[in-house]
Amino acid sequence: MADLSRCLPLTRESVFKAHELIKPLIHETPVFTNKTLTRMASTPRELSENARPAQPVIRLWFKCENMQRMGAFKARGAFHAIERLKQDPDWIAEGGMKKGVVGFSAGNHAQALALAAQESGIPAYIVMPDVTRPNKIAATKGYGAKVTLCERFEREAAAAKITAETGARLVPPFNHPDVMLGAGTAGLELQHQVEKLGSTLDAIIAPCSGGGLLSGTALSCEGTTIRVFGCEPEFEGADDARRGFIKGERITEVKTSTIADGLIGVVGPLPWSVIYERKLVKAMYAVTEDQILEATRLILERMKLFVEPSSAVPLAVVLFNEEFRAMVEREAGENGWDVGIILSGGNVSAEGLAKLFTP
Amino acid sequence: MADLSRCLPLTRESVFKAHELIKPLIHETPVFTNKTLTRMASTPRELSENARPAQPVIRLWFKCENMQRMGAFKARGAFHAIERLKQDPDWIAEGGMKKGVVGFSAGNHAQALALAAQESGIPAYIVMPDVTRPNKIAATKGYGAKVTLCERFEREAAAAKITAETGARLVPPFNHPDVMLGAGTAGLELQHQVEKLGSTLDAIIAPCSGGGLLSGTALSCEGTTIRVFGCEPEFEGADDARRGFIKGERITEVKTSTIADGLIGVVGPLPWSVIYERKLVKAMYAVTEDQILEATRLILERMKLFVEPSSAVPLAVVLFNEEFRAMVEREAGENGWDVGIILSGGNVSAEGLAKLFTP
Repeated sequence: MADLSRCLPLTRESVFKAHELIKPLIHETPVFTNKTLTRMASTPRELSENARPAQPVIRLWFKCENMQRMGAFKARGAFHAIERLKQDPDWIAEGGMKKGVVGFSAGNHAQALALAAQESGIPAYIVMPDVTRPNKIAATKGYGAKVTLCERFEREAAAAKITAETGARLVPPFNHPDVMLGAGTAGLELQHQVEKLGSTLDAIIAPCSGGGLLSGTALSCEGTTIRVFGCEPEFEGADDARRGFIKGERITEVKTSTIADGLIGVVGPLPWSVIYERKLVKAMYAVTEDQILEATRLILERMKLFVEPSSAVPLAVVLFNEEFRAMVEREAGENGWDVGIILSGGNVSAEGLAKLFTP
Repeated sequence: MADLSRCLPLTRESVFKAHELIKPLIHETPVFTNKTLTRMASTPRELSENARPAQPVIRLWFKCENMQRMGAFKARGAFHAIERLKQDPDWIAEGGMKKGVVGFSAGNHAQALALAAQESGIPAYIVMPDVTRPNKIAATKGYGAKVTLCERFEREAAAAKITAETGARLVPPFNHPDVMLGAGTAGLELQHQVEKLGSTLDAIIAPCSGGGLLSGTALSCEGTTIRVFGCEPEFEGADDARRGFIKGERITEVKTSTIADGLIGVVGPLPWSVIYERKLVKAMYAVTEDQILEATRLILERMKLFVEPSSAVPLAVVLFNEEFRAMVEREAGENGWDVGIILSGGNVSAEGLAKLFTP
């Protein structure tokens, strides 16, 4: 990975610079509104208990990173990391362009890094757990990467071995400034696109796994009036960041089989420092599997967008998490809030999604 | 329905007028390109026989009517029919605004008419076959329509009865100039949007059921250099318009259970006069169930758009129909063609789509 001492500082200004750098390489993904979902978000829920439901006023803006190159926001971090490496004279001098890059990932980071490396003519070595779905392996190979399969918990060791043998540079999936700043460009674009449409966001809610997207989004809003919230599945303790907020320290281990399978990781130390220690994320919220499934259905059927369940977690919070909704009612008052939602990715097969909706 | 003598003539100019009228009421749906699908369309297929595959050069443009109001292009025809009625002094004088409108449909026309009528404060009576899925009935009622269920083949009789009792005006689903011209506005918008992006279409391909969309699209291109093609599923004779082209006359009966369940109708006489008799559609093509399913998968997984299988029929033709592909190779030469594809709608439930992708 790029020498940390050469990295840009973790600030909003750096997100602007990252955007400048990767703009020609990525899609400016569309931003959509949706009347039905906005109305649902602003309608009090029918609660089974006798409690008074929250009555927030919420206008929704969806940033479609499922339509990003290779199908997820991860392209932003990968392209940024590669472009930064190419600006590093030491890396160039030591033959980095020929030695290549290494990544370990079972998911979108693998494809993102493979794609970004390929476009610069740089070799990419990707370590994937041997349980990875064949179509993901094929897609990564399709971008010209050399794929090494390993046992599930030996990814880092396998990547280290490749680094030692080839001299290739490690590009981690989230725990690195270049990757975080690259991911943050989605938040920056969203702000500008909403402004062009004549509105201003009051809040953005982004899903959190390793924390690259959430920390980047938080940095993209630093010093503005936009509040940033994070969200996770709660199933089997997948809400490690939320629990970390309560405990006051980062949780370092999680094992969950949530349907939001892009969000099974624990938040990394560097993202955590931005999210929690610098207090750039106001709060974390969690939702149940049923709520994620229902939000996924709404995005498919109402927005006509194909997303992986992880992408539906922010909408699930907005529609179903009474704690979040009460907070909006309290803080936003009658004027309500314009809330940006990042649809993080759409890399699920038709069969994979079908399974979720088969009784 | 609006008095035929008061209807606009079936010309491109009238499509412009229709667009002027309904523009404030409908969405200008997005147009997307897709590198992967454009590359696939321009790659010769691997044929199992020894034949030389066609080698067309095709650049694809997708018009997303699945993102239209109520989820399908049908909103255009319904809004246009209602707006035209409102301009008819006789209809107004006889109390039409209070007597309302009648429609019969198991599908998107029901919801479209209900929505359009509701927004003008006009009562809508919708006759639906009693086998209609509950969610479609609920959606139609949700737009304020009075829904009458009837036996499958008695829709027209049931609608006639309501007309007699209430004095409400019938708005047919496709066999009417107002509906056809309204549907044609999708083709017109597509042309303008592609031009704004710096290109010009050489062809548009649209699915054909009753023929409202296809005839409207053909009218929207009359007198331009854009060729219009139609397409259908071939399963159990669903390709009635294609077979009509061969036979030289309109086929009037079809019974099919194709997965493209928006395309089970036979083309109506008025659309047929535009499509075939006036030769505004160059040719009809048909595809198999497997090809439709594969094209559906590609739109979901690659474009990240949620569509009903009917919407995937044009892409299936472009990718898999060797007759179409050979024609493009022959007519377009090395420069190739910019081909517009109309994604007609996205009104399928997550469960409905899941069934198609469950082994």
